[in-house]
Amino acid sequence: MEILDGKKVSNDIKNEITVAVQEMKANGEKVPHLAAVLVGDDGASLTYVGSKVKTCERIGFDSTLVRMPATTTEEELLEKVKELNENDDIDGFIVQLPLPPQIDTQKVLLAVNPDKDVDGFHPMNFGKMALNLPTFISATPFGILELLERYKVETSGKHTVVIGRSDIVGKPMSILMGRKGCPGDSTVTLTHSRTKNIESIIAQADIVISALGVPNFLKAEMVKEGAVIIDVGITRVPDETKKSGYSIVGDVDFAEVSKKASYITPVPGGVGPMTIAMLLKNTLLARKRHREVTGV
Amino acid sequence: MEILDGKKVSNDIKNEITVAVQEMKANGEKVPHLAAVLVGDDGASLTYVGSKVKTCERIGFDSTLVRMPATTTEEELLEKVKELNENDDIDGFIVQLPLPPQIDTQKVLLAVNPDKDVDGFHPMNFGKMALNLPTFISATPFGILELLERYKVETSGKHTVVIGRSDIVGKPMSILMGRKGCPGDSTVTLTHSRTKNIESIIAQADIVISALGVPNFLKAEMVKEGAVIIDVGITRVPDETKKSGYSIVGDVDFAEVSKKASYITPVPGGVGPMTIAMLLKNTLLARKRHREVTGV
Repeated sequence: MEILDGKKVSNDIKNEITVAVQEMKANGEKVPHLAAVLVGDDGASLTYVGSKVKTCERIGFDSTLVRMPATTTEEELLEKVKELNENDDIDGFIVQLPLPPQIDTQKVLLAVNPDKDVDGFHPMNFGKMALNLPTFISATPFGILELLERYKVETSGKHTVVIGRSDIVGKPMSILMGRKGCPGDSTVTLTHSRTKNIESIIAQADIVISALGVPNFLKAEMVKEGAVIIDVGITRVPDETKKSGYSIVGDVDFAEVSKKASYITPVPGGVGPMTIAMLLKNTLLARKRHREVTGV
Repeated sequence: MEILDGKKVSNDIKNEITVAVQEMKANGEKVPHLAAVLVGDDGASLTYVGSKVKTCERIGFDSTLVRMPATTTEEELLEKVKELNENDDIDGFIVQLPLPPQIDTQKVLLAVNPDKDVDGFHPMNFGKMALNLPTFISATPFGILELLERYKVETSGKHTVVIGRSDIVGKPMSILMGRKGCPGDSTVTLTHSRTKNIESIIAQADIVISALGVPNFLKAEMVKEGAVIIDVGITRVPDETKKSGYSIVGDVDFAEVSKKASYITPVPGGVGPMTIAMLLKNTLLARKRHREVTGV
C-alpha cells in the first residue's frame, strides 16, 4: 500500500511554480497576478481566501484581495467582476463561494471572463474540459488527476467508480476519468443518491473516488483487494482533543480500507492540500496564455 | 416489448411545432428562422442539409441555405459565421460537418454565437448541459431523451450503460442520463474502446445506449431480460436489393434482442428520425429566447 501524499505533492508543485516565477522575474517578465473576491465575513471563507493570498505571496505571485461587505448587491458584485475582467494586470481571479443570498451565484460565475476563470467553474471551461479542449480544470478534480499522474497510477482500462455527482467534484471527475488521455481512459460509473445496489457497484471498482461527505462511509469489506482509493470527503466532526474543537474526517474508514488498498489518500493530507496548488498552477497557466495573446 | 417509434414521435413533434408556428403567425409574431451553411459538395451532407431546409419550409419556419465552395478558406467561413451571428433575423444556424481539411472545425464551432448554436456543439452549451443550465442539447442526445420521456420509460435509479464516448452522442448521453431530473437520475457507466470485460458491464444494464457503429454488435445473450435498448448505430452496408445499393444497419441485432427487451428502438425509424425534429425544436426555442431578449 502506498499513500498518495497530497501534502508532499502540493509542496513539490509550489516549489516548481516558485522556480518558474523566479525565471519569469529573471527574464524581466510580468509575474502571475491572482485576485480573490470575498463578499461578507464568513469565517471559513476568510480562512480559505487568506490562505490563498498568503501562498501567492510566498511563491512570488502578485495577489489582490478584494473584500466587499455582506450587504453588497448583485449589481455591485457584477460591476467588480467586470472591472477585474478588464484589468489587464490581473491574469486570473476567483469569487469565493458561498455568496450572500441576495446574489445569484450562477449569474456571477457566468460573468467571469472564461480566460481568467482559474477556478474552472464557468460553463465554457466545463464544456471545454468535457470536450478535451485547453481549459482550466477546477482545483479539486485537477488535483486528483495530478496525484494519479505523479504516482503513476494506471487508469487506462480500469473501472473507476465515482461516488457523488456534485458540479465541482463528482461530475467533472467522472468526465475526466473517462476522457481519452492519461490519466483517463477509465470505464467510469457515476453513482449518486438515486443509485441502487451501490455496494455491488463499488465492489467492482479498481479505482474509487468518493465525494459523498459522509464520514467513514467506505468500509474495507466494500472494496476490492488492491483498489485505488481517493477520498474527497471533508466533514468536520466535533473533537475535544483538538484546539479547534473539531477534526476533519473523510468518507473512507482509512485504518481498515488502507490494508486492502494499493494506493490511498489520507484525510487530511490527501486531496485537500492539492487544491491551492492547482489554483496556483491554473493562475500560472493563465499568465502564460495571457502573454501569448497580448505579448506582455 | 414496445417499439420506441422515432418516426411517429418525430412526426408528432413536427406537428406540434407546426401548430406553434401557426399561432406565432396568427399573433403577428416573427417565425423561427434557421440557416444552414454547407461548404463543398459532399453528397451525404447535401442530402442532410437539403432535408433540414425542406422540413423547415414544411412546418412554416423561414430557412436559408448558405452554400460555399469546397475551396472556401477558414477566414471566409469565419466571416460568414460572424455575419450570421450578427444577422438579427436569424434565430439559429448550423454549420454542416464535416468541413474541408483546410478549415479548423473547432475554431469554426467556437465562433458560433452560443445563443444561435442550435446544434449544441459549442463548449459553452456543452458545459451548460452538464451543469443543468438552460442550453441547446444537441439533436441526437436530445432526441433520445424525448423518446424516453414520451414513452414514460423509467430512468431514475436504473443502471444505464452507454457504449462509445463520442463528443456528439456517447459523452453527452452519459452526462444527461446521470443528471438530476427526468429523464435522468440513472447510475451511468460510460464504456469505450479501452473498456475491459464490456460484456459483464452490459449484462448489468437496465438501459443500454449503443453508439458504437459496429453492425449487429449487441446480441441477445449480452442483455438482461427486460432491458431498454437504444440503438444509435448507423452503418451503411451494401445491399443489392435496395435501389440505393445499401441498407442502414444498427449496433443491435434487432430480431433477437427485441425478444428480450422491454423497449427498443428500430434502425431505421428509431433515433435517426428524431434528430431533425429536435433541431427544429431547438430553433423554436432559440426564437423564443431571442424574443425574450430583443422583444421582437
